[in-house]
Amino acid sequence: MDLDQTIGILASIFTTVAVLPQIIKAIKTGMVNDVGPWMYIILCIGVALWVVYGILKQDWPIIICNAISLVFNGIMLYILIASRQKELPVKSN
Amino acid sequence: MDLDQTIGILASIFTTVAVLPQIIKAIKTGMVNDVGPWMYIILCIGVALWVVYGILKQDWPIIICNAISLVFNGIMLYILIASRQKELPVKSN
Repeated sequence: MDLDQTIGILASIFTTVAVLPQIIKAIKTGMVNDVGPWMYIILCIGVALWVVYGILKQDWPIIICNAISLVFNGIMLYILIASRQKELPVKSN
Repeated sequence: MDLDQTIGILASIFTTVAVLPQIIKAIKTGMVNDVGPWMYIILCIGVALWVVYGILKQDWPIIICNAISLVFNGIMLYILIASRQKELPVKSN
């Protein structure tokens, strides 16, 4: 595996899992008021477009990484929406 | 411009500007306690790696989008670190 492939894989992993600490923090603390939903709405649209791009290009790494990212950002968005609709037992600030 | 180029450009724009609403919310409200810094540390590393990848591949769209993303995520990370060190006049929850 040459250098740019290694760096591409590392970059994909970092950007794909980046939202995990925020999801864990939100679930642990139940506090999400300061986290804006718009970021995750835009991110979900963006990574969904990357999945479509990957399909058009038949580029499996792009499809897989962005599909995983879509799931993670979708989870965070669900937490934000549910907390604002008070479905989740979320502590208010 | 064909379909996959259009979708690639749209995907890049969405994922690059996604953090802007969170930056604006943080500056407007001064409340960032619920926003975890680890997400932005990992994102900054990830997009920095994408910049390196773009340089190795001489792929200017990848370099430009991820460099802008690095700046935006770096700003958000600075806001988070500064608020925790109380440099910024940030309201506590």
